[in-house]
Amino acid sequence: MKRIGVADTTFARVDMGGFAIDELKKTGTGFRVERYTVPGVKDLPVAAKRLFDERECDIVIALGMPGANDIDKVCAHEASTGLIHVQLMANKHVIEVFVHEDEAKNAKELAWLAERRSREHAVNAYDLLFRPERLSKNAGKGLRQGFEDVGPIS
Amino acid sequence: MKRIGVADTTFARVDMGGFAIDELKKTGTGFRVERYTVPGVKDLPVAAKRLFDERECDIVIALGMPGANDIDKVCAHEASTGLIHVQLMANKHVIEVFVHEDEAKNAKELAWLAERRSREHAVNAYDLLFRPERLSKNAGKGLRQGFEDVGPIS
Amino acid sequence: MKRIGVADTTFARVDMGGFAIDELKKTGTGFRVERYTVPGVKDLPVAAKRLFDERECDIVIALGMPGANDIDKVCAHEASTGLIHVQLMANKHVIEVFVHEDEAKNAKELAWLAERRSREHAVNAYDLLFRPERLSKNAGKGLRQGFEDVGPIS
Amino acid sequence: MKRIGVADTTFARVDMGGFAIDELKKTGTGFRVERYTVPGVKDLPVAAKRLFDERECDIVIALGMPGANDIDKVCAHEASTGLIHVQLMANKHVIEVFVHEDEAKNAKELAWLAERRSREHAVNAYDLLFRPERLSKNAGKGLRQGFEDVGPIS
Amino acid sequence: MKRIGVADTTFARVDMGGFAIDELKKTGTGFRVERYTVPGVKDLPVAAKRLFDERECDIVIALGMPGANDIDKVCAHEASTGLIHVQLMANKHVIEVFVHEDEAKNAKELAWLAERRSREHAVNAYDLLFRPERLSKNAGKGLRQGFEDVGPIS
Repeated sequence: MKRIGVADTTFARVDMGGFAIDELKKTGTGFRVERYTVPGVKDLPVAAKRLFDERECDIVIALGMPGANDIDKVCAHEASTGLIHVQLMANKHVIEVFVHEDEAKNAKELAWLAERRSREHAVNAYDLLFRPERLSKNAGKGLRQGFEDVGPIS
Repeated sequence: MKRIGVADTTFARVDMGGFAIDELKKTGTGFRVERYTVPGVKDLPVAAKRLFDERECDIVIALGMPGANDIDKVCAHEASTGLIHVQLMANKHVIEVFVHEDEAKNAKELAWLAERRSREHAVNAYDLLFRPERLSKNAGKGLRQGFEDVGPIS
Repeated sequence: MKRIGVADTTFARVDMGGFAIDELKKTGTGFRVERYTVPGVKDLPVAAKRLFDERECDIVIALGMPGANDIDKVCAHEASTGLIHVQLMANKHVIEVFVHEDEAKNAKELAWLAERRSREHAVNAYDLLFRPERLSKNAGKGLRQGFEDVGPIS
Repeated sequence: MKRIGVADTTFARVDMGGFAIDELKKTGTGFRVERYTVPGVKDLPVAAKRLFDERECDIVIALGMPGANDIDKVCAHEASTGLIHVQLMANKHVIEVFVHEDEAKNAKELAWLAERRSREHAVNAYDLLFRPERLSKNAGKGLRQGFEDVGPIS
Repeated sequence: MKRIGVADTTFARVDMGGFAIDELKKTGTGFRVERYTVPGVKDLPVAAKRLFDERECDIVIALGMPGANDIDKVCAHEASTGLIHVQLMANKHVIEVFVHEDEAKNAKELAWLAERRSREHAVNAYDLLFRPERLSKNAGKGLRQGFEDVGPIS
């Protein structure tokens, strides 16, 4: 039985963690979910680390929704840097699912984007853990999570 | 008996650490506070680390008030990066409470914002330590500390 | 028998990993390839680390194609920082092969550039592993990968 | 007998280390100074680390004067990041005293600022080591080093 | 017998490593040189680390010539950050000698600047290893490598 960690925030305006968990359950079996909610994206790195160390997760999905201001961009950068550091300490993947508020033109699109990216990256996490050959097959295919795939250059 | 570290600065123009401690005491019991004051935000990471290692804190609240100039923004970024690093070394949370001088339109609002954010993040620290289910329940709810919550996208 | 890791992404729009492997095989023998495909460039650092630790690679080629937006530039920076960190942890080289979408004026040139840079850096990886004297001989020669060499200042 | 490390540079245009040492001696006793001069600010992190590890310092004051160009700002940022890292490795404070050339309107003011900031931060280092209660008492008081204190918001 | 590592790149347009080695030999004796050439500046951190760990160097001179574009500036920043990290891991100095293409107004000046900075920093490396008192004597003297010294503020 594998364990998939889901770390999310109270700052996000959409239940991204909930969508990821729902999609994981639709995608396959053989795992249980460990959820860990923190205030904001800068709290995600240590949450991911604790999911690895204390709850023995095999992979973590870290979800957040950084704001549109300069300071929010810096926060997201710090969080991402920390999430990469965690992976190197744990030797395990953390799939970062960040949706920047200014990626969408309004609240409705933001909610749509956050749900879709959360779901598509949940499948990526599942694939890394259970069927990495699906990723290998798609190397260089121009895949995207959230908005449409751009596809390979033919 | 848990220990909550409160690291703050002489640079800040408001007693942010004092507000955090006051709010912690209003929020619950079962902990004692360890306070550590340093000159500026760049001194906070090692202060937090020492609060974990030497004073056996279970969580740290790190409070600071970066200035409005470019150089201050860089200092805050360096401090935040260090605070995330500390968390990964200690496997414990540091709740960063930074109020940037240019977030407020005048000194009065700055003082109001610093107090409110310090108090609200003190509750976050308490929740992470004593009642994490309160955070889980609020996943994706668009919560903010200081200014008003923006709320979830409905 | 040496092992050369090839880490690439499903985000890239060209099969950069495939080109690198093809070029390695044209260049010499005495190695086998371990391939590892991940979603995006931020997943490359831990992939490289795992190629070193779990698949016993002696060197890794990490290939990706960051987008043209500001956020993509930041992602690439985070990935590069992580790749340098991995090298210091493993004491082994990771040859980073990133092609930024805005380096090329259209999709056709982008594909050409990605193939050529992947192939030329594959030879660099081979040289670092099997014939470092080829690099020493070219110190200060103004070599480039992808676009034309600029050459030494005479 | 405590040891206070003073790391400074040949790049600075003012003997900042000398001012810090002079001020330390005026401030108190119970310590000896270990001085370590390097070419520029990017050499300060390892100098500080060696002052801790090889010369058994209890705290380090790291002084430098970054230039006014963009590249100098980046150097200063790299140095500061390294100095924070050193602190986390040593579990001891490094008081960074950087004076950016463009903080002052001319050479005379630059020299004045560098001396004053060096002296005031020397006292901070002394306080962290010998009388931390002086810092606690000033939490949130809007203190500055070099230019005038802005003071607390009343 | 000390060992001085010289790490340089095939990307640079001038044989910076060669100039550094030549200057070292003119400056003194008691050391041997270990040279390590890599493709670009981002490969320098692990080269420096390997020079310390595998070839037992006591100090490393890392030379490179970052390009003038934004992406090159980011690469240089990543390399510099890595070089500082290496120093903290090894507890030894790495003297970074980077010459940015846009520091010079044409190719001729670039070559002149690269040679002169390489030579002057080679002496700094020699001094750190064999006669640190020469650096102490020059603390705060406004020394530069490449262009003219600006000198102390009198």
